[in-house]
Amino acid sequence: MNGVRKGYVRPLDLRHGSVDMTHGSGGRAMAQLIEELFARHLGNRFLGQGNDGAVMPMPPGRLVMSTDGHVVSPLFFPGGDIGCLSINGTINDVAVLGATPLYLAAGFILEEGLPLADLARIVESMARAASAAGVPVVTGDTKVVQRGAGDGVYITTTGVGVVADGDDFSGDRARPGDQVIVSGSIGEHGMAIMAQRESLGFSASIVSDTAALHGLIAAMRASGAAIRTLRDPTRGGVATTLNEIARQSGVGMMLQESALPVQTEVAAACEFLGLDPLYVANEGKLLAIVAPEDAARLLAAMRAHPLARRAALIGSVHADEHHFVQMTTTFGGRRIVDWLTGEQLPRIC
Amino acid sequence: MNGVRKGYVRPLDLRHGSVDMTHGSGGRAMAQLIEELFARHLGNRFLGQGNDGAVMPMPPGRLVMSTDGHVVSPLFFPGGDIGCLSINGTINDVAVLGATPLYLAAGFILEEGLPLADLARIVESMARAASAAGVPVVTGDTKVVQRGAGDGVYITTTGVGVVADGDDFSGDRARPGDQVIVSGSIGEHGMAIMAQRESLGFSASIVSDTAALHGLIAAMRASGAAIRTLRDPTRGGVATTLNEIARQSGVGMMLQESALPVQTEVAAACEFLGLDPLYVANEGKLLAIVAPEDAARLLAAMRAHPLARRAALIGSVHADEHHFVQMTTTFGGRRIVDWLTGEQLPRIC
Repeated sequence: MNGVRKGYVRPLDLRHGSVDMTHGSGGRAMAQLIEELFARHLGNRFLGQGNDGAVMPMPPGRLVMSTDGHVVSPLFFPGGDIGCLSINGTINDVAVLGATPLYLAAGFILEEGLPLADLARIVESMARAASAAGVPVVTGDTKVVQRGAGDGVYITTTGVGVVADGDDFSGDRARPGDQVIVSGSIGEHGMAIMAQRESLGFSASIVSDTAALHGLIAAMRASGAAIRTLRDPTRGGVATTLNEIARQSGVGMMLQESALPVQTEVAAACEFLGLDPLYVANEGKLLAIVAPEDAARLLAAMRAHPLARRAALIGSVHADEHHFVQMTTTFGGRRIVDWLTGEQLPRIC
Repeated sequence: MNGVRKGYVRPLDLRHGSVDMTHGSGGRAMAQLIEELFARHLGNRFLGQGNDGAVMPMPPGRLVMSTDGHVVSPLFFPGGDIGCLSINGTINDVAVLGATPLYLAAGFILEEGLPLADLARIVESMARAASAAGVPVVTGDTKVVQRGAGDGVYITTTGVGVVADGDDFSGDRARPGDQVIVSGSIGEHGMAIMAQRESLGFSASIVSDTAALHGLIAAMRASGAAIRTLRDPTRGGVATTLNEIARQSGVGMMLQESALPVQTEVAAACEFLGLDPLYVANEGKLLAIVAPEDAARLLAAMRAHPLARRAALIGSVHADEHHFVQMTTTFGGRRIVDWLTGEQLPRIC
């Protein structure tokens, strides 16, 4: 990916061109795609090393590593696209483990025929997201599959970060009495995708919440609150993520339906499509389990951050050998908030 | 990915079952797939942490990171499959940068309808390769796309390793006078795939050379030879890799065709298909550029290792402002060994 001139006959046609099989060959066309598109937008001193991997300084601490494939359809949606989603999602997976995200790797699987203009738009979006988050894409890979063996572009992003000894926000640390906080209104990412797929006119105002949350997490930690667990409720939504934590920690949880922040448009679109916002993916929200005495302090710190203005205390943890997540409904009843079974929203991220 | 019982109605049907959209939902079916297939075979204490990422100890040094998407078709081929290929390939990309490979992440994009038996066979192969190499898969991700939006399974593997300060085998270090060594006979991986695709009966004996090379590299380094550059000649083959090094280092190279190790069956299959083995992918070979005075010592050290018995000195580096790679043919002529242009072998890795 270095800048030495290689004498291409002509530059890539980013307006009318499209991906063809030569762009995955390992030869001249691939080198040109890397140079004129990927390196141009994502370029930094690590990516510029030009080897099949990158070498970077590493501060002391434990290593955190997370990977996520992105197959969202459509590629572009209100509030974002597969590019920024693939950056933010992986940063969040690293950050919720208490780590400072440091570096990203991106693997592209391109379908023959993808307009280069679409790819450029996606890579520009990745570059903006990476730059805004301060986490560079240091290495990458490009493969091309024939028409009909892919769907435009799939991006697998891997993130690494560093976490100090003793910092631990993993899913097995919830204890009876702890409080459950969500950083904002739920279901927006999933419903932005669904509204676009289903052409729901009345839902045009729903935009994905895709965002990198490491800044918010830093602010939460600076509050000094005893945070037990952090997790971003993506696929499967808040319900599935809380079930995972309940299982890992060996506890039960009780949610208050009336406390769940849901935008009016999201609630309406969910009702129209027969979906429950508790199971709908978020891409810029987090769940925090916090010691009871620190819940108010943490909530105040979160609400002071632009990405968590609508943070809310939505429930609490209790002992339960069945590890059930339950909810007190707005009508005063109780129901079990089970794991997602079946497939509610395919290819949402 | 922890082992707490979740009360699945029945275990995965690994004999007759197939991947469906629920396996990518983030819900119960996905958790079952992870537990009964991925964690069962790949399990280790990091993968077992059960979060959306893993936390591991990190020795001091610089961090090396590399990522590679694997889209090889067919999924199973003589000598290997997409599973072991995805492990070995990424280990090699980390190792040729002089690093000790430490951890791997694997992102799966599964096509609806993929037989679970095939997936199990692939994951078992990954587990064997990771175990043999001593490099664990510490975190992963699974997405499912609809029938016709993928091709069985794509695997993007990311590796991290650690490299000491001062160790540098990057592509910009070749100098005039240096010698070029290849670790063994070339073109086997690519021709194993092509022979299977084209049903070339006479080529049944060609098997992929897929192998993890970090042990060989350790032996090479232990020889004390002044290694300038290491690179694994995968997509685009030896020709493309040497052109990349020539460009990065700003030098020319002269190869000796008679010195190139090529198996008889590979040469025959290449001739039949009109391919040049110099451009055919390898998955268990490396190229080393070495100081002239150390070439014999390095060659001896390589030939003492099981993965480089047929290592050969194939050329030398010289000053050339055009950065041409040339070859003295067996007939005594000279030709330019250009970059691969066009697509010789689609989806070879």
